[in-house]
Amino acid sequence: MPELRKDILTGRWVIIATERSKRPDDFRPAEVQEPRKESLVFCPFCPGNESKTPPEVFAIREDHSLPDQPGWKVRVVPNKFPALQPGPPPPKRVKGAYQWMDGVGVHEVIIETPDHNQELAGLPPDHLANIIRVFRDRIIDIEETYHHQYVQVFKNKGKEAGASLAHPHSQLIATPIVPKRIKEEIYGAERLYRNQFKECVFCRVLEEEQASGERLIYRNDGFAVLAPYASRFPFEMAIFPLRHSAFFRGIKDEESFLLADALKEALGRLKLQLSDPAYNLVFHQAPNPQVSEKAWPGIDAYYHWHIEVMPILTKVAGFELGTGFYINPVPPEVAAEYLRKNEKPAS
Amino acid sequence: MPELRKDILTGRWVIIATERSKRPDDFRPAEVQEPRKESLVFCPFCPGNESKTPPEVFAIREDHSLPDQPGWKVRVVPNKFPALQPGPPPPKRVKGAYQWMDGVGVHEVIIETPDHNQELAGLPPDHLANIIRVFRDRIIDIEETYHHQYVQVFKNKGKEAGASLAHPHSQLIATPIVPKRIKEEIYGAERLYRNQFKECVFCRVLEEEQASGERLIYRNDGFAVLAPYASRFPFEMAIFPLRHSAFFRGIKDEESFLLADALKEALGRLKLQLSDPAYNLVFHQAPNPQVSEKAWPGIDAYYHWHIEVMPILTKVAGFELGTGFYINPVPPEVAAEYLRKNEKPAS
Repeated sequence: MPELRKDILTGRWVIIATERSKRPDDFRPAEVQEPRKESLVFCPFCPGNESKTPPEVFAIREDHSLPDQPGWKVRVVPNKFPALQPGPPPPKRVKGAYQWMDGVGVHEVIIETPDHNQELAGLPPDHLANIIRVFRDRIIDIEETYHHQYVQVFKNKGKEAGASLAHPHSQLIATPIVPKRIKEEIYGAERLYRNQFKECVFCRVLEEEQASGERLIYRNDGFAVLAPYASRFPFEMAIFPLRHSAFFRGIKDEESFLLADALKEALGRLKLQLSDPAYNLVFHQAPNPQVSEKAWPGIDAYYHWHIEVMPILTKVAGFELGTGFYINPVPPEVAAEYLRKNEKPAS
Repeated sequence: MPELRKDILTGRWVIIATERSKRPDDFRPAEVQEPRKESLVFCPFCPGNESKTPPEVFAIREDHSLPDQPGWKVRVVPNKFPALQPGPPPPKRVKGAYQWMDGVGVHEVIIETPDHNQELAGLPPDHLANIIRVFRDRIIDIEETYHHQYVQVFKNKGKEAGASLAHPHSQLIATPIVPKRIKEEIYGAERLYRNQFKECVFCRVLEEEQASGERLIYRNDGFAVLAPYASRFPFEMAIFPLRHSAFFRGIKDEESFLLADALKEALGRLKLQLSDPAYNLVFHQAPNPQVSEKAWPGIDAYYHWHIEVMPILTKVAGFELGTGFYINPVPPEVAAEYLRKNEKPAS
């Protein structure tokens, strides 16, 4: 019997195929991909090509190296083809029955390493921790400079995940309104806090998941990696800080190393066990504190930032698009068991 | 300047790239695909292979032809690998912080034609009208027999849209709960009806769109095909009945011919102008009348059934998954202008 499971935060249901589910091995491609060998001359993110991007807004650099010159370790630049134009929050407008606003926001690219052929999971933990602190500092800077309501940090890895350039990079887009997905989580968390749990629902779930262990993939002193109970996608993962905190921007330097470790474990296992699938990775956090304070007083108590990792192994089709339901052929318990292993599977 | 547009029903925002948007020609593949030539011996939906599917639940047949034998024009069978197991609505259950229920529902396949190499847009209008009446009659039968809350009718055309078999077919899945996407539309429509328009918001939008014409693709005496104002995807289309009606199951026989004409025009233009892209098509309607009556009294007045057609031309990536925002590189006004033409574009 398949199982219908509810994401208690958002009210989203998923269908988990528990019986005739696919085996994890079904998702490993038959042929192993050749390592990329690309002309780095044309990559706008490679050292030496700094002039091909807009001028950098931030970089971690070797001493005495100059902006927009080689010598950087992590480099942040405005997106050359931004989804939103730079500027302060625009007013809402009305046109007949419709509502719209100017497409103003911030769209930046975080170039994660000078090494074109490296990838996030392969970087040394210290370097990964650097990237995490760059995310944090960019969010703080953008929220305090431009006052946009939300900053979405995300990563598309691989063509199937929507990446147009192979050089390792993440992106952030600051939006002038709080996105629907985030609002749903906030309202859900607030309602569950008030009416049911009297504590942060994420903290409650983390406690239950650590006690049962059946969906726990990895944990260290600061973070837990879980296969979510109502996973939408095969091998979906969520990374939660064990310390309750609504704002990712509040992450401490020492915690950045623990998150780097958790992220490296999560992405490394994905790569190892599933032959390097494409994935999307997103940060979910409370909106700009100035906005949160007014719109959701008390959000500090009930919201809990986290990261979602969604491997691209199946197609989202008409049923999902029509209903918002998802059909997941791999129970998260099976996915977690598979991803808990950290050695190469026998082929 | 890009534009942020709000879907007023669901609160979903989209980013419309109005300035440096892609040209419609960018979406036509450089090479034209070869027509499919497949072994029909192994296709479970081809005539002669009826025993490869579960026994049919309904068919339109030539006189004196027998069930599960050739001679059918449209054939409905249970899905051999159902997402939900057949049965009556299951109870909701609780497990710690989580909620779940048995995966019970109905999952059927509507084989649209005996001709493996035909497709929906290529069928004669009378045949298309037959299929539409089969959708209607299956919904009525399932709602009155099993009392499931919602029946989702959908079609995945092409591999990129998630279709695993090429033979023309649609599907329906009856779910024991009203899907989130439908609930959002209902609550949005109710709120706009009550607080703002004092009339059906879909009727208001249809009136404005017909007056301006800038996003109108096609209309006949019963239906209008629009490029929605807040289109999520390039060349997205919506088909609305001009006669206000909440329940697709209330479509009259004579209206089925007008819908067949509108559908044929919509899908035919998509094929002609964009070199036959994969697409998802979904019906949105009010839930089972028994459920609607209790949960949303008055839904008859404010909800309006419709069809959404979503061509697969771009990838949904991290930003969309993280936020629920969509980035659409083709303004719907440009898409509509392109799809209004009904002759082959110069190449």
